[in-house]
Amino acid sequence: MSPLLLALDFGGTKHAAALVQLDAIQAGTRPSATRPSATAQWQAYQRALSPSNANAEVDLAIMRSLIQSLLNGAQPDAIGVSFGGPVDFTTGTVRLSHHVPGWENLPLKQLLETEWGVPVSVDNDANVAALGEHRFGAGRETNSLMYITVSTGVGGGWILNNQPWRGAAGMAGEIGHTVVDPQGPLCLCGKRGCVERLASGPYMVQQLRDRLQQEPDRGEILRSLVLDQTALTAQHISQAAAQGDALAQEVLQQAAEALGTGIGNAANLINPQCFILGGGVTKAGEQWWQGVRQSARQTALPEVNFAILPAELGEDAPLWGAIALAQPLISPSAQ
Amino acid sequence: MSPLLLALDFGGTKHAAALVQLDAIQAGTRPSATRPSATAQWQAYQRALSPSNANAEVDLAIMRSLIQSLLNGAQPDAIGVSFGGPVDFTTGTVRLSHHVPGWENLPLKQLLETEWGVPVSVDNDANVAALGEHRFGAGRETNSLMYITVSTGVGGGWILNNQPWRGAAGMAGEIGHTVVDPQGPLCLCGKRGCVERLASGPYMVQQLRDRLQQEPDRGEILRSLVLDQTALTAQHISQAAAQGDALAQEVLQQAAEALGTGIGNAANLINPQCFILGGGVTKAGEQWWQGVRQSARQTALPEVNFAILPAELGEDAPLWGAIALAQPLISPSAQ
Repeated sequence: MSPLLLALDFGGTKHAAALVQLDAIQAGTRPSATRPSATAQWQAYQRALSPSNANAEVDLAIMRSLIQSLLNGAQPDAIGVSFGGPVDFTTGTVRLSHHVPGWENLPLKQLLETEWGVPVSVDNDANVAALGEHRFGAGRETNSLMYITVSTGVGGGWILNNQPWRGAAGMAGEIGHTVVDPQGPLCLCGKRGCVERLASGPYMVQQLRDRLQQEPDRGEILRSLVLDQTALTAQHISQAAAQGDALAQEVLQQAAEALGTGIGNAANLINPQCFILGGGVTKAGEQWWQGVRQSARQTALPEVNFAILPAELGEDAPLWGAIALAQPLISPSAQ
Repeated sequence: MSPLLLALDFGGTKHAAALVQLDAIQAGTRPSATRPSATAQWQAYQRALSPSNANAEVDLAIMRSLIQSLLNGAQPDAIGVSFGGPVDFTTGTVRLSHHVPGWENLPLKQLLETEWGVPVSVDNDANVAALGEHRFGAGRETNSLMYITVSTGVGGGWILNNQPWRGAAGMAGEIGHTVVDPQGPLCLCGKRGCVERLASGPYMVQQLRDRLQQEPDRGEILRSLVLDQTALTAQHISQAAAQGDALAQEVLQQAAEALGTGIGNAANLINPQCFILGGGVTKAGEQWWQGVRQSARQTALPEVNFAILPAELGEDAPLWGAIALAQPLISPSAQ
C-alpha cells in the first residue's frame, strides 16, 4: 500500500486534518490543466472549530480526535503541520499563538513524534500555505513565488528555487509590516503606513466607518446595505463598491493601492515569478484586483515582470502545504 | 602549480583585472579575524580608466591589454567577470551599459571563452560584489545577506543560502527603486519617493542645493567649504555635517532615513542575517550610519534582527566576487 501522509492545520479559530496516499499526490504534482481538483484527492478530511475559551491543551485534544477518526486504526508514515503563529522550523517548536494561550514554546514536533512514532515537520501557516500553492495550487508551474494572505492581517511566505525561504530567524515574508507611506495612519506595530494598516480587512472597515461619519452625504448604497454600522464587514464594502458606491470604491482602491505598492517593492527586491493572493479580502471583487495589479505594475521597474494570481486552494492551502512538508520525511525506499 | 583564476571588472568609467592562485583564496575562505587582507593575496593586479568617448570595443581592447600584462604569457584556468550593467547570467550576455555604447546584447562570456579557451562566468556588478563580500569580505561568516551600493545610484545583490539570488529574470536587488514615500520627489524611473531618489549621492547634492537657495540664512559652514555650489559633492555634505552645519545634517539625515526604511522593509520581507553597504555615500560619516541603522531598526519588526555593516573590500569587491564566480568553473580534479 502507498504510504499515508497526515496533514494537520492548527488555525486560530478552527482546525483541520486530512489524510492522503503518497501515490495520489505524486499524480497530483503533474502541472496540468486537467489535474483533478485538490480536494478530490483527499482520502479523508475533517474540520473542527476551536471553542472561544480554548487553550493549547484543548486544541491538541480536538486535533487528536480529528486524527483518530481520520486514521480509523491505520498508521500514518509522516505528519506535516501548519501552525497559525510563529514556529521555530528547525526544532518544530511553537513560539506562541496570537489567539490561544498555552502554546508558548510548546515542542509540537517532538510531542507528535512521540505520540505517533513517525517523523513530523512543523511550520507557520504562511510558509506552509506558500508551499501548498507552489506544489498543488496556483504556483505549481513556477519555481519562485510569494504567497500573501490578505485577511485580518497581511502576511506572506516565499518559495525561492522551489524551496521555502524562511529567513535567518524564520521571520521572512512580513510584507504586512513593510512601510509604504511614512505619513500614513498608525499601525499596531508602532509604525505609520504599513501595508497591513492600509490593506487588511478590519482596517478597511475602520477606514470606511470613519469616512461614513466624516462624510454624512456619501456612501448611500453602503448605508442601505448595512443599517447597523458596527456590523460592517469587508464584504459589504466590496458589495457596495460593485453596486457603484463611490465612497466604498475609494476605500477599496486605497487598500488595493497600498498592497500593490508593497507587492511592487517586493518584486523589485526579489523578482519572483509570481505573487499568489489568498484570504478573505481577495474576494473583494474585480475592482480590488485591478487596483492591486495596477499599483504593483507601476511600482515595479519595467523589466521586473510577474503575475498576480488568486490562490487556488482556499482554506485548504495549509493542509496541502503540510502534505508537501511531510512528503520528504518518508524514507526513499517507501516512495 | 595551483590553478590560476582571472577576475575582470568592467566598470562604467574604470576597469580592473586581477589574477589569483586557487590555493591562496582557499586559505582566504577560512572565516578568521586573522585572515590576511584581501588585496594582499592578489598575485597581480591592474587598473585602467575608460576614456570618456569609449565604446564596447575600446573597453574590450583596454581589458585585453590589462589581461596580457597580468598573465605575462601564462594561461588562466577560469575567468570571472563583473559587468557594470544588466547581464543575462545564464548566457553571459550583456544586455546594455548605461554609460558606454556598443554593449547592447554583446555575448561577453562567449567572446572571452573563444578568446582564452577557458570557462567564463559573467554577472552584473551588484551581484558580483555581493558574492565578493560574502566570500571574502564583511559577510564571510553569514549565509544570507544583501549587499547595497550607495553611490550615483542605489542598487543591490542578494546572497541567500550561501548562493546568489538573482531573481526570475536577473532583476532582484533593486532596492533603489522601492518606494518609501509615495508623496516624495519624482525619481528618474517615473515614481515618487524611491530610495534612490532620496538617498543617492547626486540627489543628496541636488536636495542640498535647492535648500541652500530656499534658505539663504542657513548652511554657513557648507557655504564656506564650497564657494562654487556647482562643485558641491556628497563629501562636502558629510564634511559640513561633521563640522556642525545643521542644514547639511538635515539633508544627510533625510537620505539616511530613506535608505534605512528601504533596508527595514527588505529585512521584514527576507530576514537576511546582514546588510552590507558599500559605495561613496557610505563614507559620509557616523551620523549617516546612525541614521540608517536607527531608521532600519524602527522599520523592521522587533523579532527581525540583522546587522548593517560597512563593506570591507571597497572597490575590489567586484574583483573578489569575480574570483568567487570563477572558482566553481575549475574542474574538481584541478582543485
